[in-house]
Amino acid sequence: MTETTPNHTQTVEGWAAMDSSGKIAPFVFKRRENGEDDVTIKILYCGICHTDLHQARNDWGITKYPVVPGHEITGVITKVGSNATNFKVGDRVGVGFLAASCLECEFCKASEENYCDDVQFTYNGFFWDGSITYGGFSKMLVADKRYVVHVPDSLPLDAAASLLCAGITVFSPMKHYMCQPGKKLGVVGLGGLGHVAVKFGKAFGLHVTAISTTPSKEKDAKERLGADDFIVSTDIERMKSGARSLDCIIDTVPVKHALGPILNLLTVRGTLVLVGVPDKPVDLPSFPLIFGKRNVAGSMVGGMKETQEMMDFCGKHNITCDIELVKPDQINEALDRIARNDVRYRFVIDIDASSDH
Amino acid sequence: MTETTPNHTQTVEGWAAMDSSGKIAPFVFKRRENGEDDVTIKILYCGICHTDLHQARNDWGITKYPVVPGHEITGVITKVGSNATNFKVGDRVGVGFLAASCLECEFCKASEENYCDDVQFTYNGFFWDGSITYGGFSKMLVADKRYVVHVPDSLPLDAAASLLCAGITVFSPMKHYMCQPGKKLGVVGLGGLGHVAVKFGKAFGLHVTAISTTPSKEKDAKERLGADDFIVSTDIERMKSGARSLDCIIDTVPVKHALGPILNLLTVRGTLVLVGVPDKPVDLPSFPLIFGKRNVAGSMVGGMKETQEMMDFCGKHNITCDIELVKPDQINEALDRIARNDVRYRFVIDIDASSDH
Repeated sequence: MTETTPNHTQTVEGWAAMDSSGKIAPFVFKRRENGEDDVTIKILYCGICHTDLHQARNDWGITKYPVVPGHEITGVITKVGSNATNFKVGDRVGVGFLAASCLECEFCKASEENYCDDVQFTYNGFFWDGSITYGGFSKMLVADKRYVVHVPDSLPLDAAASLLCAGITVFSPMKHYMCQPGKKLGVVGLGGLGHVAVKFGKAFGLHVTAISTTPSKEKDAKERLGADDFIVSTDIERMKSGARSLDCIIDTVPVKHALGPILNLLTVRGTLVLVGVPDKPVDLPSFPLIFGKRNVAGSMVGGMKETQEMMDFCGKHNITCDIELVKPDQINEALDRIARNDVRYRFVIDIDASSDH
Repeated sequence: MTETTPNHTQTVEGWAAMDSSGKIAPFVFKRRENGEDDVTIKILYCGICHTDLHQARNDWGITKYPVVPGHEITGVITKVGSNATNFKVGDRVGVGFLAASCLECEFCKASEENYCDDVQFTYNGFFWDGSITYGGFSKMLVADKRYVVHVPDSLPLDAAASLLCAGITVFSPMKHYMCQPGKKLGVVGLGGLGHVAVKFGKAFGLHVTAISTTPSKEKDAKERLGADDFIVSTDIERMKSGARSLDCIIDTVPVKHALGPILNLLTVRGTLVLVGVPDKPVDLPSFPLIFGKRNVAGSMVGGMKETQEMMDFCGKHNITCDIELVKPDQINEALDRIARNDVRYRFVIDIDASSDH
């Protein structure tokens, strides 16, 4: 396996972390020629996900440096391979977490490529040709057509970018575990994933309770995002009085935290879905799990068919992420603010703004 | 709430722990008169569950001393209240974990009394009259008819005793999560719960893999219990090669242990059911949960209708627990051996043997 292959001839400007300091700096690298199954995308926007912070700093111990983060990518197609008949030059498109998969397993066949045992990611993965993948903190991407979705015309490309990860990550388990109107959903953590989960919940007709450590988010949660209820998770009495009240909880918190009080909010047989990826194991107490026949489930992004379905749903319901647009030279500042939980609700890099610097 | 009430007039000989040393000693106490909804049971056998050890030693911090443990009770009915029309004197019966519940909630109405928010247990609980409940380490029990099941004639009362907790605890989630023939079941821990889970698995037509820290249990697991496969959980390579191979795993281990390697054995969307009750939270790593869309579920014993169904199933398939019969003055020794994981597979107290001492 090599890092580059002979057909990696296209020079691309991007931004990368070079070591576990996680500091992002300009980085020039090569991408492959546009193959017959590929489309080439002029990247316009790229969201910044907590995963990018984990990977830039090697929190999970799996980062290959230099790493070009970014898997919430939107842009416009500039080149189309002969087999990529579903796309044309000028199409507004998005690319998320997935860059490749085996194409042959039961999951690939069901367009659940995200659970393919050989799934490869948009960065820090290996593409089929053996090259290391580089993500969306860059000006151009060559992507296999299978892993590209159309962005509805009604959605602005900047605010739609984070749907590619934050959006699908919460959409998929909400579809799987519950979306019958009237059911009661809890959303833990009002960040990039959580705020869009509240929006999806309302669009699905659910009763939505936002659960956050930050009391000052209550107004926003209710008035701006549409949450029906708000619980400060450090309010022990309030957490207790909410016992057995929620059918499903989407927990978006990406750092280690206590699951017991959250589990107690669930009805019997209720499901807590973990979609954040803490770098350390979380403590799972057996009593609230066992006494309530509850479940803790994991879910990771979604398959490509489902991602397109989500995009179309967002187009129909006019759902996007609430974003703060930053320039490429503000990425480090943005990452620091993400680490401090200081973002409402997602940073998106305006890739073209780099030309100002 | 008081510990005794005026109609608690019947003197009973039993065995109790008086403090957190957990040492069991003879203890004489009172039980209520047989009410119109009650049956009185001459206790013949009582299994010893790991929970009894936890409670005797106050591992969970909720023990009310003196505590008379025991919730795997079999015996013969000696008195029948006027409303207990489903029973008659001489019936062979069993009592498990449940002593009372609210009778009015959705769970009670569905005979899932085990998930009633006001469920009370056979010992260390509060009965409807406010009295503290005392368990099966005793010669006689007065039980409300709702929480008593018939033991099929084909099953010996000693080996059937542990079905009331060990049996139903694994039967219920196996029914709920899987019992379609051909599915692949894993059973972690070959103790009281695990060994009967293997038997149920084979009776349900499943492919059963036993997973244990104890290599010497392989022969027994395969030849005696009928397991199709055996994995030593400390064999890292073997655990890795078994990745994504099991549809459901019943984890019976009652102490803190690593879930990550076990989760990796599950297929995508597979379920790990925790039925042991570790006194400390277990570490739940997010990667194997999220990357495989897996679930960790809790389950606690079963409802009364389901417990009778299990008993009838055991009668039909001739399933009992493999037990080691002990006398009441050997209870402490048995508890020590349980703490050392030195039992194949369940101790049962021969209550009448006490008359020899």
